[in-house]
Amino acid sequence: MQKNKNNLKQLIRAGRGITSAHTVVLHGSLVNVMTSEIYKADVAIYEDTIVAIGDVSDYIGQETKTIDATGKYLVPGLIDGHIHSECSKLSITSFAKAVVPCGTTSIISGLDEYISVSGLEGLQEVFKEAKASPLKVFWGAPYRTPYTFPQSTVAFNFTQEVHREVQKWPECFGVWETVREYIQEEDDDTLGAIEEAFKNRLPVFGCAPMARGKELNGYLCAGIRLDHESYDHEEVVEKMRNGMHMIIRESSVTHFLKENIRAVTEVNPALARRVSFCTDDVTATDVIEKGHVDNLVRLAIAEGVDPMTAIQMATINSAEAYRIDHLVGSISPGRLADILLVDSPESFHVEAVITNGRLVAENGKLNYALKAPARSSVLSSALKCAKTTKEDFEYKVDIKDGQAKVLSMNVKGPFVRKRRDVILNVKDYIVQPDTEQDVLMVSVLERFGRNGNKSLAFCSGWKLKKGAMASSAAPDDNNIIVMGADAADMSIAVNHLIENGGGQVVVADGEVIEFLSLPVGGIASDLEPEEIAYRETLLTKAANKLGCDLPDPLMYMFFLPITAIPDYAITDVGPVDCIALTTFEPVLELTQVK
Amino acid sequence: MQKNKNNLKQLIRAGRGITSAHTVVLHGSLVNVMTSEIYKADVAIYEDTIVAIGDVSDYIGQETKTIDATGKYLVPGLIDGHIHSECSKLSITSFAKAVVPCGTTSIISGLDEYISVSGLEGLQEVFKEAKASPLKVFWGAPYRTPYTFPQSTVAFNFTQEVHREVQKWPECFGVWETVREYIQEEDDDTLGAIEEAFKNRLPVFGCAPMARGKELNGYLCAGIRLDHESYDHEEVVEKMRNGMHMIIRESSVTHFLKENIRAVTEVNPALARRVSFCTDDVTATDVIEKGHVDNLVRLAIAEGVDPMTAIQMATINSAEAYRIDHLVGSISPGRLADILLVDSPESFHVEAVITNGRLVAENGKLNYALKAPARSSVLSSALKCAKTTKEDFEYKVDIKDGQAKVLSMNVKGPFVRKRRDVILNVKDYIVQPDTEQDVLMVSVLERFGRNGNKSLAFCSGWKLKKGAMASSAAPDDNNIIVMGADAADMSIAVNHLIENGGGQVVVADGEVIEFLSLPVGGIASDLEPEEIAYRETLLTKAANKLGCDLPDPLMYMFFLPITAIPDYAITDVGPVDCIALTTFEPVLELTQVK
Repeated sequence: MQKNKNNLKQLIRAGRGITSAHTVVLHGSLVNVMTSEIYKADVAIYEDTIVAIGDVSDYIGQETKTIDATGKYLVPGLIDGHIHSECSKLSITSFAKAVVPCGTTSIISGLDEYISVSGLEGLQEVFKEAKASPLKVFWGAPYRTPYTFPQSTVAFNFTQEVHREVQKWPECFGVWETVREYIQEEDDDTLGAIEEAFKNRLPVFGCAPMARGKELNGYLCAGIRLDHESYDHEEVVEKMRNGMHMIIRESSVTHFLKENIRAVTEVNPALARRVSFCTDDVTATDVIEKGHVDNLVRLAIAEGVDPMTAIQMATINSAEAYRIDHLVGSISPGRLADILLVDSPESFHVEAVITNGRLVAENGKLNYALKAPARSSVLSSALKCAKTTKEDFEYKVDIKDGQAKVLSMNVKGPFVRKRRDVILNVKDYIVQPDTEQDVLMVSVLERFGRNGNKSLAFCSGWKLKKGAMASSAAPDDNNIIVMGADAADMSIAVNHLIENGGGQVVVADGEVIEFLSLPVGGIASDLEPEEIAYRETLLTKAANKLGCDLPDPLMYMFFLPITAIPDYAITDVGPVDCIALTTFEPVLELTQVK
Repeated sequence: MQKNKNNLKQLIRAGRGITSAHTVVLHGSLVNVMTSEIYKADVAIYEDTIVAIGDVSDYIGQETKTIDATGKYLVPGLIDGHIHSECSKLSITSFAKAVVPCGTTSIISGLDEYISVSGLEGLQEVFKEAKASPLKVFWGAPYRTPYTFPQSTVAFNFTQEVHREVQKWPECFGVWETVREYIQEEDDDTLGAIEEAFKNRLPVFGCAPMARGKELNGYLCAGIRLDHESYDHEEVVEKMRNGMHMIIRESSVTHFLKENIRAVTEVNPALARRVSFCTDDVTATDVIEKGHVDNLVRLAIAEGVDPMTAIQMATINSAEAYRIDHLVGSISPGRLADILLVDSPESFHVEAVITNGRLVAENGKLNYALKAPARSSVLSSALKCAKTTKEDFEYKVDIKDGQAKVLSMNVKGPFVRKRRDVILNVKDYIVQPDTEQDVLMVSVLERFGRNGNKSLAFCSGWKLKKGAMASSAAPDDNNIIVMGADAADMSIAVNHLIENGGGQVVVADGEVIEFLSLPVGGIASDLEPEEIAYRETLLTKAANKLGCDLPDPLMYMFFLPITAIPDYAITDVGPVDCIALTTFEPVLELTQVK
């Protein structure tokens, strides 16, 4: 996406019609998001760039290919304004297969989970993979890694020093997901990342759920440009009145669009100008069933947003928020040729997708075989973690028998964990999980060979009656998380992941019931999206069979290490009180049997 | 305007209300350009930055100063989206005195004339001067100097090599005024400047008068973001449909607003979003009489633009076009505290001006004595040019007596010169200017001590009956331009400028009638704006007395060296055919008397 004198000359000549276009898209209606107009217009493309719109007959030469758009609407490629593609467990290649046919041609991403498991070397490998795919990745350099408070263990620590280097990279378009608490705590690396961003003229992307009033003001004073984390439309309105761009999130687990869009439909239509869309975390199943950013366009229209405005939210508004509107977000000369053929602006079904000037998808599928690259050892290395025994998952205390009052982290939706105090039995110096009371053991094991940390605590809400489940994909750190009613099964689950180089597993009665291999960094797979979706269903069913009735048992589990979420989390350094920003001792009181 | 960890910490604390605000602006109505709303809101300021809007009572400490805005509207400081302040002959200090009280708190400028006369050293001196003033200068690095085709002589040549260095400077916010012809001709330094801009994530500002169709497409393919040069509203519409931001110009000599704004008022109100304002070239007289960007707001409202929209054009739209909206353009936490107190959005009279958190102007005047800095020898050096004699301005031919058919450059408005063929007498081997036929001699003299170039040609439209006028301020090169009916008077005029270190002069009958000294680089003065305005009137009157009836005789003259304008120009290398982009021989035919 860089320009040099040589390609500039070629483009200038192509724009002037001196050299013929490689491709023209004829007979369609242009959805001009720059002017909010829809009119008949053709498009001329040279290599990966749009060189003319309107009457392009002078651009057609003998070699020029034609794409017929009769009866179709030409819409700029859609932009996902904030996505961790890794959360889908799809590698970038597989993710592109899933979302590009839906019309998503660009994503803004920190690729932060790749970094947490494989550092800058792995990141460079993913950049290369993305460039070979039809999906553009606009990378934001994570403000720091790990994101956790107190600091947990990841394969690579992102510091100001690292920002000094990576912000110069052409792939870097900003600072990724700067969590409010780190601003408030004046974290040195976080402020350092922002200092560098100012020098490098990069926007700073935010992450400030429920920040209001003075907390919000303090955050904005650090120069944060945008946010994708509003819990209700009033929060959206407040943030926008204070000058932010708002990226409305509709993920597989948090459905915020219907509520947040009320800021536009009920409070103030003028806000639309700086509203855009993101999905943040999506499952393969969801993309297959509902679509991706195209679905957000449809949802917004269903909520009463004018189709042109909804399309702008998914295209130019995002491009402007992230300052990439010179590259993508509109069908204009000089921009990259990412163009969708859509049935109508109102029903908004994407029928064909052009990226970088090539027709790559039709009728919901890529029209060519996209192969995943061979993985280097950096991304395919085994989990660097010692095998476990059942003792690793037994919570030991210094009374032989009696009762323990423990703080169990009680899941209330995917991103909220509340305190629940429970009385558990102590037998033989071990605090017993209690399926009757819905209290399981949960543990996080460091897996990058750095320190061998293991933590152990109690959790509720998953309702497993027996067995265990584990995942080496677990944002933001992607250490191994394991949860279970039985210490032996927990150990088997973890050991299975170690033996197989990462994945997700459900175990019961000493047996592996279901396993999904995630060989790319222990977090992603090159399987086809449909295959991943199917395997996810099997994992969910296996967990359901053990008693769990959450909509996505493993996803709810694998968010547990995120400390930016209220009120509790667990990382390799221990269970965390996310309000006090400290680890805590989960056993509150012991009562010995007399 | 840079952020570092230290000032970030202070701002974060101020934003959180932990440290008190330095200043609060109370009881006003906030014109929120981000949301198009007007509502009662106070503003808290810490040092130079806005830290809160709304209820700021928690931000007030014992030392907090109060600015009372009862009954007033709080509007972001206005932005001039494209200005050569040098054209006003006001130094930055004097220019700030003129425009800041009108509400202009930021200008986008190439400062290109300072560069053409004093190079990067002089530029740095002007940056320093600007920082000591209440006016912010967002500098765009000129795409090249000289701007001329074929290349003329300036003190400093701006090349890709220079861009490589200066684009890293924090003062640099883009590439300035990239002329379309240089793109079309694939000029190496111009494409090099753009190549660097892509690396440095800087926007490229354009200059493409009357570019339409394929010419426009070729230009856009070079990545040009915006333009300030549209001759009619249809040109505005075409450029915007093709993805450009449009900066509508209303200068002292070209009045484009009334025509261009029709794109919004008559064609498509949605275009407003990417329309902003500039004045490009203004005279001190005009600013004093009509105002500056505030006047454009009033003019737009008079043409039917909604006041909120007009204010957005003068603030946030410009900030977004130039990607400086994180710093200026809105009253939001984290932005610099440039705030106007305005009587009402409809009548739009700026009554007080806050810049960088300080109340600096009230009732049309700065409220403190702003002193111009002492000038180094770089900016105050004498014109490096040999004295002239009358022979320098006599057009010699190789016939003794007879007639010459010459191409005279006939001025038709400030920025159009058309061909006019005239028959002149030849006497004693010299082609005679002819006041009866309105044909004068015009010459440009290189004045940087580089090569001593002198050119000589014929011009029409000024109607001087006798005498001469000269100027060392003459964009874009700022060589000496002199025009006259009499070679001896032309020589006296030029020599007077050389003896006095630059300025503008009118001479008749061997005597200097009027002279304005321009000691800052030979192009600007530190006099008060009112004084300059008065002196300009005297110069105009002197030229009028010699027979010229143009609205601004010296300004019309000093634009003559600009080769980016149809159809003719003159530089130190000769008279220029601006369409063929070559110098030309003005004497077309000679007929000897038999």
